[in-house]
Amino acid sequence: MTKPHAKDLSHLLSLESKSRQNSPLKSAFKYYFDPKVTFLGGGLPLSDYFPFDNLTAEIPSPAAFSSGKGINTTASAEKLSLQIFKDKTKNEPNQIELSRSLQYGHSEGQPELLTFVKDHTDLVHKVPYVDWDIIASVGNTESWESTLRTFVTRGDSILVEDFSFSSALETAHAQGINTIPISMDDYGIIPSALSTLLDNWVGPKPKLLYTICTGQNPTGSSLSFERRQEIYKLASKHDFIIVEDEPYYFLQMEAYTTDKSQRTSTIVHNHEEFLKALVPSFLSIDTEGRVIRLDSFSKVLAPGLRFGWIVGQKELLERIVRLHEVSIQAPSGVTQSLVNGLLQKWGQKGYLDWLIGLRLEYTHKRDVAIDAVSKYLPSEVVNFSPPVAGMFFTVNIDPTKHPKFKTEFAEDALKVEDAVYEQGIKQGCLMIPGSWFKSEGQSNPPQHELEHASLVAAHNPHVFFRGTYAAVPLDALVVGIEKFGEAIKIEFEL
Amino acid sequence: MTKPHAKDLSHLLSLESKSRQNSPLKSAFKYYFDPKVTFLGGGLPLSDYFPFDNLTAEIPSPAAFSSGKGINTTASAEKLSLQIFKDKTKNEPNQIELSRSLQYGHSEGQPELLTFVKDHTDLVHKVPYVDWDIIASVGNTESWESTLRTFVTRGDSILVEDFSFSSALETAHAQGINTIPISMDDYGIIPSALSTLLDNWVGPKPKLLYTICTGQNPTGSSLSFERRQEIYKLASKHDFIIVEDEPYYFLQMEAYTTDKSQRTSTIVHNHEEFLKALVPSFLSIDTEGRVIRLDSFSKVLAPGLRFGWIVGQKELLERIVRLHEVSIQAPSGVTQSLVNGLLQKWGQKGYLDWLIGLRLEYTHKRDVAIDAVSKYLPSEVVNFSPPVAGMFFTVNIDPTKHPKFKTEFAEDALKVEDAVYEQGIKQGCLMIPGSWFKSEGQSNPPQHELEHASLVAAHNPHVFFRGTYAAVPLDALVVGIEKFGEAIKIEFEL
Repeated sequence: MTKPHAKDLSHLLSLESKSRQNSPLKSAFKYYFDPKVTFLGGGLPLSDYFPFDNLTAEIPSPAAFSSGKGINTTASAEKLSLQIFKDKTKNEPNQIELSRSLQYGHSEGQPELLTFVKDHTDLVHKVPYVDWDIIASVGNTESWESTLRTFVTRGDSILVEDFSFSSALETAHAQGINTIPISMDDYGIIPSALSTLLDNWVGPKPKLLYTICTGQNPTGSSLSFERRQEIYKLASKHDFIIVEDEPYYFLQMEAYTTDKSQRTSTIVHNHEEFLKALVPSFLSIDTEGRVIRLDSFSKVLAPGLRFGWIVGQKELLERIVRLHEVSIQAPSGVTQSLVNGLLQKWGQKGYLDWLIGLRLEYTHKRDVAIDAVSKYLPSEVVNFSPPVAGMFFTVNIDPTKHPKFKTEFAEDALKVEDAVYEQGIKQGCLMIPGSWFKSEGQSNPPQHELEHASLVAAHNPHVFFRGTYAAVPLDALVVGIEKFGEAIKIEFEL
Repeated sequence: MTKPHAKDLSHLLSLESKSRQNSPLKSAFKYYFDPKVTFLGGGLPLSDYFPFDNLTAEIPSPAAFSSGKGINTTASAEKLSLQIFKDKTKNEPNQIELSRSLQYGHSEGQPELLTFVKDHTDLVHKVPYVDWDIIASVGNTESWESTLRTFVTRGDSILVEDFSFSSALETAHAQGINTIPISMDDYGIIPSALSTLLDNWVGPKPKLLYTICTGQNPTGSSLSFERRQEIYKLASKHDFIIVEDEPYYFLQMEAYTTDKSQRTSTIVHNHEEFLKALVPSFLSIDTEGRVIRLDSFSKVLAPGLRFGWIVGQKELLERIVRLHEVSIQAPSGVTQSLVNGLLQKWGQKGYLDWLIGLRLEYTHKRDVAIDAVSKYLPSEVVNFSPPVAGMFFTVNIDPTKHPKFKTEFAEDALKVEDAVYEQGIKQGCLMIPGSWFKSEGQSNPPQHELEHASLVAAHNPHVFFRGTYAAVPLDALVVGIEKFGEAIKIEFEL
């Protein structure tokens, strides 16, 4: 079967992006590599003056994390030495020499690293259309900001999850964008709610949907493949872009089970099993080129590398590269030389082994957290759904059972939330109140004017807290959850 | 004398910047370091999983570039080894451990590096007000883009140099900003022209002036101290921000002399002489806190580091940090650990030695370029002013002397420029046509309605080419300029 080409979606570009001109200087740079021309056109410093002659890094050998070992970066016997020189001739093949990575250029990313990431992307997502590509960014936060500038103009509307990453929402608000919350349940966005909203829409439709569909922040939910398919159909029908912000994609885990004997038997054993166990992405069903996928090394290697990438159709990515040329220019060259060096040493297979190791680590952390939640949080007022991806778990609290709910708190669920938050800190554990992530925005017509069960449900009072099992050692995690349980018991007089 | 405090200039902020809210999550993060609280609030990966245990870099020893030696990064005898560990306890003092630099956080930049750069800034500029500060960026391109977003809203006007960096102008145009060109001569912006324009201004005044005041791109001009003082007074009077974009500040050189025996005797001998020889910045006369200075390591260490910084009053910088939190987040941690390591090894004095070495290198390059321009470019149609800073030289060509000027070209100077550009490439040398850098924008009232010699002069036809002596080895530079001379001679039938 031949793959289709992407649809022309240039009508969805922002005023800013449409009006951005290419620099005339670009036309001159085609002579930069012409041996017959002395190129006096660019203000580039000579690499002779770069003060880093070579870099050496100690990195884990794939032997340290293959075959179900998890991740151990400290065992000194299982280390490799990675060395990168300024001088190209001294480097191993496929390395990015420092004379190039420390120079201007390659806004779209250094070719060796892009090729590795593109091959990896195709291995995982099997992108179903022809003219897709990837470009580098300095991480998903910047990717999202640049994607917004590329598609949305002050006054436009976008679709967001009912609860979403507050920083991502604030990016949109400051730009004067209306963020319309879409109802969610334990499994993420409810497609029928989205459909009702859009079928009844009056005026210019929302330009894009922003979704953290796997290991969602803050709810910890993950969108099923079936829901992704339904939502993609809606995107096609109502002509909007899907921006899938997927930093947690490779922090997918086994389903939680209380039967501890089952836990070890469910781990994935090889690359094939691993790839099969991943929920298919929006990108993997994108036949029209209307998905912009934001991906990053922040959660799987390290956030401070500040390296991410955007996957999408070439024509749309070109507009983001033009923005990058006048903003970030390119990710750090030191980062690119080092990360590329690491990945070339590991190879595609070694990198998958690393990701399998992370899956094991996070499954274990999640299990420890959920075991503690079951044990220490009072089931009289608390319920929860164990997450299958990401860094976060949430606990729902029934606010109506708070002794002050009908009296002092005047049936205001937010007052219960606030009391539990403060009591948590007092007892020695901080979890983030769910209301801090509430999306605000106005659909047209307003959701309350539409008769639909899931739209109404979204506006019932709902108290939940977001915790993480990613950031603290396991013993501290258990102690923390126990303290949070104490706080709830004190508040609810249990 | 006690220093003054900055003026409140918050009325100059953009709509976007004024409406940007702080994240509620920030209020929680104050408990991150509280030993009594288990912090389950943030989605940070454990540094145990960062795959870089330590980094080693070979860097030049200050002995390699002290006392007028210039810069030689290849002499292997004069190298230092710089090592940075993930584990804080293994590092030398003032290093940034990888467990921190590779983690989230420190949007304003890592403290050790910021302190070094702030001390350096005060040493050079002696900032004359109290509440100034610096924040990190990923380079001046990004600093300028973020500064624009912070101060200017679609439809606003800004002041720019008559010829300016085309990429910086395009950043503004795409944002819907009107860029008003200010007349220049060989010494940069003409203050009286700026004064005339603003005194007659009708409607909302321009929010800021964007100037590359030292080693200007593309003209190579440098603004004298006297002009900077006059322009600062105008900024105060007409209430605008001065954005000084200063990547070339430390590429200041000795004045050009044709007397080769004088050249060696004019070099600076010590730190005091070096600092005295630098033209005072706008920042150094900024008593009100209305200067935003954009500074960077791109031209003095390496562009691919993607590390710059912004100097200005604290209250205004805070708005840019909020933008950075939802865009770049922070510069690369690898870059920050390495650059900080380098600078801590060198110390403030070593870094000044490095800059003195660069001054020597660039003075020599400039001399070679201008010697060749004098020798090979036909003085019948060409004139030039040798630059005293930066990477660029320009040659002015009298278009009226082109044999086709009155006939085939119909007195269109741009046709002469185009013919010379194409002939240059044909002969084997590319220099960039000046018209590619022409600022376009509309003052109110239009400049041609104001009677002022310098305003009129700016609109006379003017043909010039920008070349660089930075990017090519000296022998290739001379060959290139000779070829460009050939091209002019062919075109002008000399």
